[in-house]
Amino acid sequence: MAKEKKPRRPKAETPRGFRDYFGAEVTERAEMLRAITGVYHRYGFDPLETSAVETLEALGKFLPDVDRPNEGVFAWRDEDESWMALRYDLTAPLARVYAEHQLHLPTPYRRYAVGPVWRNEKPGPGRFRQFYQCDADTVGAASPAADAEICAMLADALEAAGIARGDYVIRINNRKVLNGVMEVVGLLDPADPEAGEAARGVVLRAIDKLDRLGEAGVRALLGEGRKDESGDFTKGAGLAPEQINRIMSFVGASKTVDKMLIDTQAHFENKGSGGTEHFRTLRDAGDLYARRKLGISSDVSQARNYMMTEILHGLVEGSQVGEDGVQELETIAQLLDAQGYADRALIDPSVVRGLGYYTGPVFEAELTFEITDEEGRRRQFGSVAGGGRYDDLVMRFTGQRTPGTGVSIGVDRLLAALREVRRGTAQAEGPVLVTVMEKDRLAEYQAMTAELRAAGLRAEMFLGGGNMAKQLKYADRRGSPVAIIEGSEERARGVVQLKDLALGARLAAEIETNEEWKAQPAQMEAPRAGLVEAVKAMIARGA
Amino acid sequence: MAKEKKPRRPKAETPRGFRDYFGAEVTERAEMLRAITGVYHRYGFDPLETSAVETLEALGKFLPDVDRPNEGVFAWRDEDESWMALRYDLTAPLARVYAEHQLHLPTPYRRYAVGPVWRNEKPGPGRFRQFYQCDADTVGAASPAADAEICAMLADALEAAGIARGDYVIRINNRKVLNGVMEVVGLLDPADPEAGEAARGVVLRAIDKLDRLGEAGVRALLGEGRKDESGDFTKGAGLAPEQINRIMSFVGASKTVDKMLIDTQAHFENKGSGGTEHFRTLRDAGDLYARRKLGISSDVSQARNYMMTEILHGLVEGSQVGEDGVQELETIAQLLDAQGYADRALIDPSVVRGLGYYTGPVFEAELTFEITDEEGRRRQFGSVAGGGRYDDLVMRFTGQRTPGTGVSIGVDRLLAALREVRRGTAQAEGPVLVTVMEKDRLAEYQAMTAELRAAGLRAEMFLGGGNMAKQLKYADRRGSPVAIIEGSEERARGVVQLKDLALGARLAAEIETNEEWKAQPAQMEAPRAGLVEAVKAMIARGA
Repeated sequence: MAKEKKPRRPKAETPRGFRDYFGAEVTERAEMLRAITGVYHRYGFDPLETSAVETLEALGKFLPDVDRPNEGVFAWRDEDESWMALRYDLTAPLARVYAEHQLHLPTPYRRYAVGPVWRNEKPGPGRFRQFYQCDADTVGAASPAADAEICAMLADALEAAGIARGDYVIRINNRKVLNGVMEVVGLLDPADPEAGEAARGVVLRAIDKLDRLGEAGVRALLGEGRKDESGDFTKGAGLAPEQINRIMSFVGASKTVDKMLIDTQAHFENKGSGGTEHFRTLRDAGDLYARRKLGISSDVSQARNYMMTEILHGLVEGSQVGEDGVQELETIAQLLDAQGYADRALIDPSVVRGLGYYTGPVFEAELTFEITDEEGRRRQFGSVAGGGRYDDLVMRFTGQRTPGTGVSIGVDRLLAALREVRRGTAQAEGPVLVTVMEKDRLAEYQAMTAELRAAGLRAEMFLGGGNMAKQLKYADRRGSPVAIIEGSEERARGVVQLKDLALGARLAAEIETNEEWKAQPAQMEAPRAGLVEAVKAMIARGA
Repeated sequence: MAKEKKPRRPKAETPRGFRDYFGAEVTERAEMLRAITGVYHRYGFDPLETSAVETLEALGKFLPDVDRPNEGVFAWRDEDESWMALRYDLTAPLARVYAEHQLHLPTPYRRYAVGPVWRNEKPGPGRFRQFYQCDADTVGAASPAADAEICAMLADALEAAGIARGDYVIRINNRKVLNGVMEVVGLLDPADPEAGEAARGVVLRAIDKLDRLGEAGVRALLGEGRKDESGDFTKGAGLAPEQINRIMSFVGASKTVDKMLIDTQAHFENKGSGGTEHFRTLRDAGDLYARRKLGISSDVSQARNYMMTEILHGLVEGSQVGEDGVQELETIAQLLDAQGYADRALIDPSVVRGLGYYTGPVFEAELTFEITDEEGRRRQFGSVAGGGRYDDLVMRFTGQRTPGTGVSIGVDRLLAALREVRRGTAQAEGPVLVTVMEKDRLAEYQAMTAELRAAGLRAEMFLGGGNMAKQLKYADRRGSPVAIIEGSEERARGVVQLKDLALGARLAAEIETNEEWKAQPAQMEAPRAGLVEAVKAMIARGA
């Protein structure tokens, strides 16, 4: 046994990988989530808040996301020896709830959920073991209309949160189309869907690396294999060139369509130049383009989705599952078009994240504006939400297949994006500070504070010890817009002094000449009876 | 080792003592907490959201609340063998945060926190192992003004949540006054404050049972001991009758004042009848009563607090700590009076809950309206919040005494109270249902749904399978106010059918005659182009 030690003071710190959120960090997130869930509510989704703790068997031991196979959960034994654990996402609890309460829930069941989840993984910079998720799912609806609804709702939610239209796009792909391509190239036999799973896994992992390795790297991984910069060799899927070409045509279809689209526009703008290569699609897209006289961006998107399904039909020809998948994408595109979302929702087979996990359509919301990253490079902000269709949500519990589709917003990612968007415009609102000049007049200062609060202003009386300089320093730290001072002399005259601290800070930083200083006095006197109005006017002046 | 079993399906259930919250349960709580934290924000309090997981040493192993000595925490070991645990309240994390970030936080630091906490205790009916707390604390302010502010803020928060003025009262006591009484009766020696702690513990536990055992029971426990109904004997504190009398005078001071108050009123209303017994106080209270010509209830409260401090001064005479305590109560009462809270904030020595834990003033918010309990008896709703002053919040970490004061609202209790208050008036708002008559017209139904949503209405298109009867049943389960029906016939005529489901339900329940049925048609036709207006009008008719 270890020797007994003298009791020592506990360390004041969170466990590794956990953190606290202060002030505006909390309110900004709460406001964003309120805006988003307001949209979810309007779409008929009901809130669900499940227990943070689940039985380990209800969670399952592993995360379903193939991207992170080593992630674990925080688990411990209850007094009766049964294992319990903190939820690692909001989907596993939804499955448990739906299996448990199915008879008492409407079908389809639309629900949203917001809250922290916990992952027992190695913490790193910016990588925490507790973080927020914000999910919306429809359980029990097999219709692509449910997928389309999720995409439209996601677009509305992003706008409600503060992302402008034009600054985001919802990209949509379909696992079934990839399965169709796999079938056509001989990697999937519909009569024996288990066979070749390992080979398909290699293909999936290869195309998931498109962003990082580029087209040539993925081609190498689909073929013989790839030697990386360190000289290590990764064995490939060993596919033949035609197989590789078809898979790459699927993954690269977006680029093809972009080129076709440019050709199409050129064709109609310059009457005939370029574009003959894809004549049939061109003509059809052109018809659409000419026929519907909506805004150009919406029209281009419609044409784009139309062209895309043409290409995909060609790639999966002969595969029933593939045809079904393309048909679903067409339906989703049509429904989104009918609701006016065609300019923001694009069919895009380069969306590969999640293709291993989901069983049908997959969605990703990408922010298209540029930011400067840590290394000073300009790049697109990127993905802030993802989701898709899964059909075995509750099967683990009930043995029955239950269709479901949903989306999860990356709360911290989206918050970071909003901070980029608002950079410099938002300021946490500090309280008006009522200073304490005379300790035996607390009741009067307190009454002033109460008056300000009753008028809806955020206000504090100084509760610490210290002279006026210390109190004004406190006001500065609190970001107070105004400080109020009343000494015996002011009280005798029935007035108070108001210091415009926001202006004081700006004056010090901006104003150059004495005349400007005088024109914008940072301190003024107001009648005690007009306190609230004077403070409101001073704050308005600074806003 | 156990034999290997066939894999079985996991059970779809929460661990023992945990639960889920659905729909309105989530939104009602969120709205209540939003109203409350809005008040906290106006008072200058900043939100703090700490990690749900703390190191076990930062939490300490036991709860500080003497009422529940056996409660534990949910704890487990991290990979590096260090212990971590779920927080059991929001105060221990505040202590850790303040010790950790003191230099970067304003002093005084006003913070509020809202979130779940976890207790590893035996679950029972209505007793869960995860529940919400909502706390506000001021750290680093020794002034009774900080305590007064907490009491005023608590009153405002209750009103913001929906408790009417007159339906609640904030009761205030002070541990120091009890300590003064203990000193006067010889149970506490200021020169040796540790001595006699066990005996004082017996006294504290005895007076904590006042509600349950009544005055005679507590007197027995302060004296020789008490035999309960089963015949079991609990040994008493063994105090002499004078000692017991003084302690009971302290605990019962509220009743004494109530009697004096009635006497006082009688004295002034009937010119001289009754009340001579407490003449000095009576006269003083009477002066106050006559001098300040405010509303009667406020005036009575002022008089009441005034009388109370008179009595308490008498009980602690000769004890410095006791005098300090009474002085603090007087200051708090004056400050609350200056802010207009005297009618809702009462000094009340019968508040004993928390006296063992806190070091100075303690507060309790009590709802005074009556409810019918499980056994059909009428009783006051009772306590929904409590708090007080503690002076060793961060000492465990830093070795320094740091004054703090705060309050915790019992979230589930207050929610239950609000449900009582609103009984029958609030209804969860179900979505308008756009039914699907023709499967190949989804895009048009979806567009209708989008129009309704864009107009701010909560709306859904039916996403499940089934005929019109099934769809209307779904609408019923969802609490939909209106269902919209459009078949080919309607489409040809450019109209839609609107079913007033809310009215339908009321009609079936209330309306007796055929004429009334006809006057209030539960179904009507509207032009497709006027869909939004027609739905809004129908909902307004039902509201």
